Amino acid sequence: MTDKNLTAILYKQGDIRLEEKEIPEPGPGQVQLCMQDVGICGSDVHYWQHGAIGDFIVKAPMVLGHEAAGVVSKLGEGVTSLKVGDRVAIEPGVPCRCCSYCKKGRYNLCLDMKFCATPPIDGNLARYYVHDADFCFKLPDHVSTEEGALLEPLSVGVHACNRGGITLGSKVLICGAGPIGLVNLLTAKACGAAQVCITDLDEKRLEMAKAMGADFPLKVTSKDPKEMAGKIEECFGEKPEVTIECSGAPPSVKTAIFATRSGGCVVLVGMGPAEVSLPIIDAAVREVDIRGIFRYVNCYPTALNMIASGRVNVKPLITHRFNLEQTMDAFNTTLRGEGIKVMIKCGRQ
Amino acid sequence: MTDKNLTAILYKQGDIRLEEKEIPEPGPGQVQLCMQDVGICGSDVHYWQHGAIGDFIVKAPMVLGHEAAGVVSKLGEGVTSLKVGDRVAIEPGVPCRCCSYCKKGRYNLCLDMKFCATPPIDGNLARYYVHDADFCFKLPDHVSTEEGALLEPLSVGVHACNRGGITLGSKVLICGAGPIGLVNLLTAKACGAAQVCITDLDEKRLEMAKAMGADFPLKVTSKDPKEMAGKIEECFGEKPEVTIECSGAPPSVKTAIFATRSGGCVVLVGMGPAEVSLPIIDAAVREVDIRGIFRYVNCYPTALNMIASGRVNVKPLITHRFNLEQTMDAFNTTLRGEGIKVMIKCGRQ
Amino acid sequence: MTDKNLTAILYKQGDIRLEEKEIPEPGPGQVQLCMQDVGICGSDVHYWQHGAIGDFIVKAPMVLGHEAAGVVSKLGEGVTSLKVGDRVAIEPGVPCRCCSYCKKGRYNLCLDMKFCATPPIDGNLARYYVHDADFCFKLPDHVSTEEGALLEPLSVGVHACNRGGITLGSKVLICGAGPIGLVNLLTAKACGAAQVCITDLDEKRLEMAKAMGADFPLKVTSKDPKEMAGKIEECFGEKPEVTIECSGAPPSVKTAIFATRSGGCVVLVGMGPAEVSLPIIDAAVREVDIRGIFRYVNCYPTALNMIASGRVNVKPLITHRFNLEQTMDAFNTTLRGEGIKVMIKCGRQ
Amino acid sequence: MTDKNLTAILYKQGDIRLEEKEIPEPGPGQVQLCMQDVGICGSDVHYWQHGAIGDFIVKAPMVLGHEAAGVVSKLGEGVTSLKVGDRVAIEPGVPCRCCSYCKKGRYNLCLDMKFCATPPIDGNLARYYVHDADFCFKLPDHVSTEEGALLEPLSVGVHACNRGGITLGSKVLICGAGPIGLVNLLTAKACGAAQVCITDLDEKRLEMAKAMGADFPLKVTSKDPKEMAGKIEECFGEKPEVTIECSGAPPSVKTAIFATRSGGCVVLVGMGPAEVSLPIIDAAVREVDIRGIFRYVNCYPTALNMIASGRVNVKPLITHRFNLEQTMDAFNTTLRGEGIKVMIKCGRQ
Repeated sequence: MTDKNLTAILYKQGDIRLEEKEIPEPGPGQVQLCMQDVGICGSDVHYWQHGAIGDFIVKAPMVLGHEAAGVVSKLGEGVTSLKVGDRVAIEPGVPCRCCSYCKKGRYNLCLDMKFCATPPIDGNLARYYVHDADFCFKLPDHVSTEEGALLEPLSVGVHACNRGGITLGSKVLICGAGPIGLVNLLTAKACGAAQVCITDLDEKRLEMAKAMGADFPLKVTSKDPKEMAGKIEECFGEKPEVTIECSGAPPSVKTAIFATRSGGCVVLVGMGPAEVSLPIIDAAVREVDIRGIFRYVNCYPTALNMIASGRVNVKPLITHRFNLEQTMDAFNTTLRGEGIKVMIKCGRQ
Repeated sequence: MTDKNLTAILYKQGDIRLEEKEIPEPGPGQVQLCMQDVGICGSDVHYWQHGAIGDFIVKAPMVLGHEAAGVVSKLGEGVTSLKVGDRVAIEPGVPCRCCSYCKKGRYNLCLDMKFCATPPIDGNLARYYVHDADFCFKLPDHVSTEEGALLEPLSVGVHACNRGGITLGSKVLICGAGPIGLVNLLTAKACGAAQVCITDLDEKRLEMAKAMGADFPLKVTSKDPKEMAGKIEECFGEKPEVTIECSGAPPSVKTAIFATRSGGCVVLVGMGPAEVSLPIIDAAVREVDIRGIFRYVNCYPTALNMIASGRVNVKPLITHRFNLEQTMDAFNTTLRGEGIKVMIKCGRQ
Repeated sequence: MTDKNLTAILYKQGDIRLEEKEIPEPGPGQVQLCMQDVGICGSDVHYWQHGAIGDFIVKAPMVLGHEAAGVVSKLGEGVTSLKVGDRVAIEPGVPCRCCSYCKKGRYNLCLDMKFCATPPIDGNLARYYVHDADFCFKLPDHVSTEEGALLEPLSVGVHACNRGGITLGSKVLICGAGPIGLVNLLTAKACGAAQVCITDLDEKRLEMAKAMGADFPLKVTSKDPKEMAGKIEECFGEKPEVTIECSGAPPSVKTAIFATRSGGCVVLVGMGPAEVSLPIIDAAVREVDIRGIFRYVNCYPTALNMIASGRVNVKPLITHRFNLEQTMDAFNTTLRGEGIKVMIKCGRQ
Repeated sequence: MTDKNLTAILYKQGDIRLEEKEIPEPGPGQVQLCMQDVGICGSDVHYWQHGAIGDFIVKAPMVLGHEAAGVVSKLGEGVTSLKVGDRVAIEPGVPCRCCSYCKKGRYNLCLDMKFCATPPIDGNLARYYVHDADFCFKLPDHVSTEEGALLEPLSVGVHACNRGGITLGSKVLICGAGPIGLVNLLTAKACGAAQVCITDLDEKRLEMAKAMGADFPLKVTSKDPKEMAGKIEECFGEKPEVTIECSGAPPSVKTAIFATRSGGCVVLVGMGPAEVSLPIIDAAVREVDIRGIFRYVNCYPTALNMIASGRVNVKPLITHRFNLEQTMDAFNTTLRGEGIKVMIKCGRQ
């Protein structure tokens, strides 16, 4: 096959194919990108395995990939903020720019958001890809495109920590030490959190969390939320002010509420069942707020500043690397739960 | 009996007695009050009927009453902010003043709060009562002591509307048209809410709500939360930004979440079961915050300003009046669910 | 002359001409509007009299007018939110939609804002005009296009009161009882302000303010800021929490700082000299914040809700009406300082 | 002389004396402290040299010292939060606990604040001192009493950075590299600031700032505020979002406004002339807020968490140490501007 624009396409549940497609041309305000690095996210694997996430159903072939960075290869009409050769991180969602959410600075809630690899919108796991220029963020020379791709999960951490109000001296509980738990750990520390307790069922994950700065890696040893909340309180000597719940597991969500200090906040990041029984009287009378997040908003510049200034080091998150041609190996590795973050190198070798 | 300080005491579940007690003397920073008006709250009735609310258990005789106003009859040492004869509203909870909640302006969360008629602290349904002077708010001449007593429930509305972020032009849903729903209605309108929809099962309550300014009184005709949410959206032509849930009924709490606009807020005011199954994925991905309230904090001055400036009229809330000697009649009337607010006149006739 | 698109053009300082121009066609996402009402703003008069405001200089002929409402007469490609015949208020500034200010919900700070009748951008004092559809707000049947035109100055009040944090029970000082002072008065009251003091040198303006709800209309009788601050404090019995300074006069700005309660806020709305000597130690150690405003952001929907719900009545602000052909009479009336708001009817008679 | 309670007293301008006084007894809720470390602040030297700061005038002999830490030597009635032998940092201001500022969490604005070494309140530069227990913060074993004393200036940094809204990824300008500039530098970095530019006239101070983490130490080489603002913008490649002005010098305050990004904030920390001519139109139309600070509020726990968790290292700030008996040497050293922070050891040698 002639390699024009090798692209990883999810045809339907369980059916990923690599195909040559035309190289897309940038429209006004857009840039064409020569893709460099695309990380695999749990949602990519979920679409592959199940063909849907909630109401988002893969009804037609869809290009995968949304944690990405590339090099500008062509400018669309009117683009002046970037030039050919610029290395950029790609914020994968482009909103309508016209609705009240967009105008109020909460464009992540825009109902007309076009988000890479969320059906029916194509992602960027390909040789070439076109994106709106203002959602491409130029990387300084000392920041790699791998780090650029990692701005995506890091932005989830930035948004979650913002929503939780983590600030100087905060004591923070993070439930779940997977990739999203870890980016929240890095972000919470960078925000000035005094101490972070992170919980998980898996000891290897907790070791990794400890190596990345967690003060109290705590194994989940009980299904009783109040008992776990008590163990968490013992770690800090008091209840933490903010909890970032990254597991989505119902007992963990309950624990999050019981464990959080009165007047504090639980941020729901992990996705579990649609409905969960919650101790709302306990939350209400102690004024523990419950706040969800949807992706992120205005977080890429912050995440980039964090990496560029050396305040966080995301490189240890990358444990596996594959070429674009090895996409299936990359997905299978992720499916087996090996390592933390699997990166696909999209450039021609 | 010689009337020294006739006092309404809850001895135990089902056992309220009127007894003469000594007239208390004010300590440093306190005032002695000749009580004028005490409203009956649902919690008073609940302690009478059940002897407890959650972990608060009546283990010893306790004076009832906490929605109150009186006249200063004696000054304790060092009190300069008030003088004998001043008519005052009594904020019923006095916090420790020393913990981090007190110092941060969230004294309602103080663990050492002494709150009238919450076991084991005595209330003020009596001829005479002593309270810290800085929690007594002087009423202007044109504000009655009945209105002063109503500052208590009105403060619940002020705190709930504050927590919900109701502001100019907000569209607001209030679930439940009982006394607390109605004070939230008055407060939301006074905050500049453009439109308020209020729901209830009872048509009489909805009529009252309409008379007090509700734009859309809506009868709850379905137990399906999504269906009710749809009807609420039809009223406004869009989803409301803020919902104040005053019923505590689980289907209503679910409705509150489905009905609220993305990026908005549900405030939990009503008390139902300790645990409720909630559609947290819907709340999380639409960033609908869930916030509880515990009583109120720094709301008495605001509530007083609202009444004094004529921005709200709480007088229609009072539907029954009794003397202190008729306390049992007052409680029985409240128990039967007659009217909205029952007021006990504590002065000697 | 054949009336195709009669348009009021400022050629240069002192030189306004009415000319026929082509009727503009709407581009994608735009609508063509048959203009109905355009209010004259102080800035229109200032450009006419001086040819410039600060760095904004009239270097080429510019159409005047930016307080406007019209009727949709043609839809551009892709417009679905409006239909021909819809009566709309026109938010006069369209931002770039791509910069960090636009993305963060502060599009009023966008450096590439295109704002009607701010050089070199044309305004809408004409028979026909084209505007982006998402900055046109459909008026309900019971709201007139005159009220629609008044959403512009009212939005200044909404933004100023938002920035000042005016809320339920606030005590508010407004310096200056001109049109902007009056819309701030209306807005502050609608936000739940308990009491408003408004100051001016002109007694007629103060009478108007009183008629529109000011609690304390106060004539400025001293140039000593501390003395004036004392008189203001006497009105309320304490210092107000928020001051909206609408005059721009240096003594008034100083008064604003001295008059505001510790921990409160002075909002700078009026424009005076570029530099003013301010008592910044007094402001700093009492933590009185000083905040400016630039036009408004996300305020049209709120202002429209306020009018549509009957919470404010802006109609009394309109004191003079002229036809488009009488534009010079309208400008001369405004220049002479007669009345409050002069409205130009742009429809064919 | 018998050493009972050796105490450093400012009798009047220029007249500091060391005298033996009685050892004070703790009242209810208080603790007696055996003083360990007291840092000298610019205000101590100012009272000594000038006998007054603004309206605060030394009219009677006053004990100096307010940056302090000690060891609990006796408990007053009812104190349970501390025990004899606990090492504590002393927050030097005790508010009235009853006014609206205290109740709203802004006790630093309390009009009845009793603040160490602010006339007429005695400070704690002595062998023994008595203070309210809830304003004494227990130090963990690994935090020294010298660090405890430094919580005072560090709290100024915490309050200033809070007021400025410094957060993850912020770009920050600090004007002035004296002790307060340096604690703001440490705090801004701990808050997650991406880059900090710090300005001063003195190159040695800038070197120290660089050693403590400043990204851009910038010598003030021009008195033209716009020119300096341009140089600052060059450092970052854009304007910083937040400026902490610690010099109080009028040209620096002007520079602060011109240098700050639209929508950002200037925090006034330094104290210069009572009135300063400011470019308020520039600040207003770019919505650059101007916020002062008065001491700090609820910052000691945060500052202690920062030190205890190792997020900031304040030890390099201490450049000189003296015994209590050498108090005059300590004051003369500070007066000569030597070093950064002079510490007086109050324990018996």
